Formats: sequence, C-alpha cells, structure tokens
Amino acid sequence: MTTTIFDDVSRWRAERLAQIRSGTTLGFVPTMGALHEGHVSLIRRSRAENSRTLVSIFVNPAQFDDPRDLANYPRPLEKDLALLEAEHAELVLLPDQAQLYPDGYRYRVSETQCSRTLEGAHRPGHFEGVLTVVLKLLQIAQAERAYFGEKDWQQLHLVRGMAEAFFLTTRIIGCPTVREPDGLAVSSRNQRLSPRDRQQAPDFHRALSSSPSAGVAARALERAGFAVDYVEDEDARRIGAVRLGGVRLIDNVPLGEPR
Amino acid sequence: MTTTIFDDVSRWRAERLAQIRSGTTLGFVPTMGALHEGHVSLIRRSRAENSRTLVSIFVNPAQFDDPRDLANYPRPLEKDLALLEAEHAELVLLPDQAQLYPDGYRYRVSETQCSRTLEGAHRPGHFEGVLTVVLKLLQIAQAERAYFGEKDWQQLHLVRGMAEAFFLTTRIIGCPTVREPDGLAVSSRNQRLSPRDRQQAPDFHRALSSSPSAGVAARALERAGFAVDYVEDEDARRIGAVRLGGVRLIDNVPLGEPR
Repeated sequence: MTTTIFDDVSRWRAERLAQIRSGTTLGFVPTMGALHEGHVSLIRRSRAENSRTLVSIFVNPAQFDDPRDLANYPRPLEKDLALLEAEHAELVLLPDQAQLYPDGYRYRVSETQCSRTLEGAHRPGHFEGVLTVVLKLLQIAQAERAYFGEKDWQQLHLVRGMAEAFFLTTRIIGCPTVREPDGLAVSSRNQRLSPRDRQQAPDFHRALSSSPSAGVAARALERAGFAVDYVEDEDARRIGAVRLGGVRLIDNVPLGEPR
Repeated sequence: MTTTIFDDVSRWRAERLAQIRSGTTLGFVPTMGALHEGHVSLIRRSRAENSRTLVSIFVNPAQFDDPRDLANYPRPLEKDLALLEAEHAELVLLPDQAQLYPDGYRYRVSETQCSRTLEGAHRPGHFEGVLTVVLKLLQIAQAERAYFGEKDWQQLHLVRGMAEAFFLTTRIIGCPTVREPDGLAVSSRNQRLSPRDRQQAPDFHRALSSSPSAGVAARALERAGFAVDYVEDEDARRIGAVRLGGVRLIDNVPLGEPR
C-alpha cells in the first residue's frame, strides 16, 4: 500500500467528503511527528476500528511555552513517513502553520479549571495551544474516531471534555501508555536523554507506581536526582512531571496498580 | 406545515444524521427569541436556499455582561412559536442551559484582537460568550448554511473568522439589516424604549448615515440626548452604540451610502 500525503488541507477535505459520501469510516491519529511505538499503538488501534486511517504530523508552536523546547523538538520527517508506510497508515496530513492558523492564532479554545492545574500550572498557555490545534485538526479530519495516548493523561481528559462541550462528532479514544521494557514511558523526548540519564529515567515510573503516597514518590525522586515539577493523586491516577538533565518527562499510573 | 420542536439535543442530532444521509440540505438561524422582522428575513433567506430550516431559540447567559440586561431580555415563547409556524420554519431547537453547557462554561472560544474593540471594549466577555455558544450551536445543527444579521456587524465578522479558523463546515451568511420605516434598525430591545425615546431613536441611524465623520456623528448624538458608547469608522463601515433611557442600541451603515 502506498501512503498518500496531503499537504493541502482543502485537497484533504475534498477527499474526506468523497469518503463520507461513500460511507467510509475514518480513524484519526494527530501527532507532532518523531513517531515511536506509542504512536504505532494508536495507528494499529485505528486501523482495527476504521476502514481508513489518517495520521497528521504538525509540530504546533502554540502549545510550546518554552521556545528552546520548540527549537529542539525532533522533526525526522523521512523516518516518520517510512514508519507510516510500514504501518500501512495510508493517509497522511502534513499541514503547515499558515494553513492551520489562517487567523494567526487569534481564535483560541481555553478551559478555565483543569487546564490550569498540573501541566497547565507549569506550562502557561500549553493547553490553550493544544485544545486550539486539536479542535482545528478534528474539524479538518472529520473522522469517526480520534486516538490519543493515556501518557498525556491531562491532555486526553481535556480533549474529551472539549469534544463533549462543543458537540464534536468525533469519538475521542484513549489508548494505554506504551513503555520500554524497563518501564520508561515511550516519548519523543527520551532520545534527548544522556546515556546516563536514560539509565536513571525508569526510576520515574517505578517511584510513581511503588510509593505509598504522592509525597513519598516526589521525595524519592528528588533524592534520586530528578527535579520534580509535581506528583499528584487525582481521580484514581498518580500523575507526575520531572526534569532530568534538562529533559522534561511526564507519566501517570492508575492508583490501584499492583505494587 | 407543523413545527417540530426539539428540546432534546440528542434527538435533534439523530434527526439531522438521518437528513444528512438522505442528502437534505439544512439552513440554520440561531436566535435568542423575541423574534421580529430581522429574524424573519433570515428565515426566509434560509428557506429559499435550503431544503429544511432550523431555528434555535436560546437566551445565552454567557454573553450578557449585565445581569439586569439578561433579566430584562424578553422571552415571548408562545408568540415566537406562532411566528415560526406562520413562517413555515418547521424545525425549532429549544435547548436549555444544562444541555448546551454540560461543561458549565469551562470550555470557551476567545478571539484576541477584534473582539476587544467596539462592543467588546464596552461589554467584557460578551464575544467570548457569543463565540462559544455559536460554536456549540453550529456543531449541533450541522447545517450547510447559517444566517446572521448584519446589524450585529462585529459579531458577524467574528463568527465568520471563527468558522474559517476552526474549519467549520457550515457557511456563514450575512443578511442586510431590516429597518423600521423611520430607519431604526429592528431589534428585540426596541420594545423597551419609552414612546418618547422610540420617537427619538431613528436619529441614531440618521446621524450614522449623514454625518461627514464618526466624530461629528458622535457629537450630534450626544447633543440630541443619546449617551454614546462609541461611533467608529472601520473597514468601510460606520459602527456605533448608544444608550437611550437605559436601552442600548447598536447599528452600522456602509460608509459609501448615499447621504
């Protein structure tokens, strides 16, 4: 199967209209590229549940609160496209900034409570950028289902809430976090860890899973050399964010998980 | 023809899905009720351009900056439904607050520039409320076309911008302001004018249309006893807002209009 790349939003919309008319179901996997096993699990789930699957790659400047993080964000497009072809993700949307933001980011989606806690408290404007671009992409994709990883737990929760609040027709589906054999949650940012920090990084997941309380987990992580942004228990979930050698890692585990 | 009232959003969505499957085109006229000749012109335009027409009635608390204005807003539901029946507007959406705001207004749409000028500068939060409810209603309606009056010029401009920014599939159509024989723009708020103020009110449109500049118009209105919130020339349009005996009136005219 050959991958069809849509770098023109209008061309995609015409294609999707034809699909809708012929009753073709679509699954949508929005990504910022630098694809890894986590994305692969979303793509496979989408392929299993829909006739066609659309993957978008767009590094969204609006959701980066730190310009260095945006500048350092990996953009291995050739490798990504090869992976998509290998995974039979046959439809790829590659919009540019001007196409997605004809308004110059004047129109925004915000959320007034949950978006200001946890990640939101540490990354001002982050979720406003996420919700805005996800709304745009969902409206462009016009999919039956869209797939998001549980690793970004707060993001998944906020996107679900937005879909309900704005009566979006796309169903939001959360998929389990994919982990390395040593427990580290797969993430595009992992490749920026030094070999030494990469060895240390699984302690993050270990501390979240095995500590009797969020406070104990946070202190254990600080002692192990992580800079802890937060570790909090919320809605039967322990959610944390740490920095290790300048690389920011987030993760979460269910609170009932066996220790 | 009998009017079908949908007070349940889910029931409407199921109906619309069936319409879409059968290729039925829909025109949508969102209103806050207290229907008048302005709304009638939108309904007639929609009926001329679509197979079916949906009119919604919902007084949206989120867009009222002044609680007294919200409390005083007319809600003549029986009269509205009679008018809709007479106009053969056969589909009516009557959602309540809980249905439209399952999120308790936590999710919002904002615009960072134009929404802060003119009406936006005088009514904090107004356009955030308007854009949020219009996005909800457009997503619920799933219409081919939605009709808005040019009387609310800035609102029309902002809704058009939102539709473009968020890739909404509904086309936004602006319709000319309907006026009383004496030139006063038809508005739900006109019925709150005292008989004396009602006599004076057409001077507002007259001053906008016949003054050589926005400043001259504003001064003429102040002299005539209006409290002027603003009169400004923007994008080949003269836009103004005034208060007369506690009733707020807005209007706008094309700048090229014959004097």
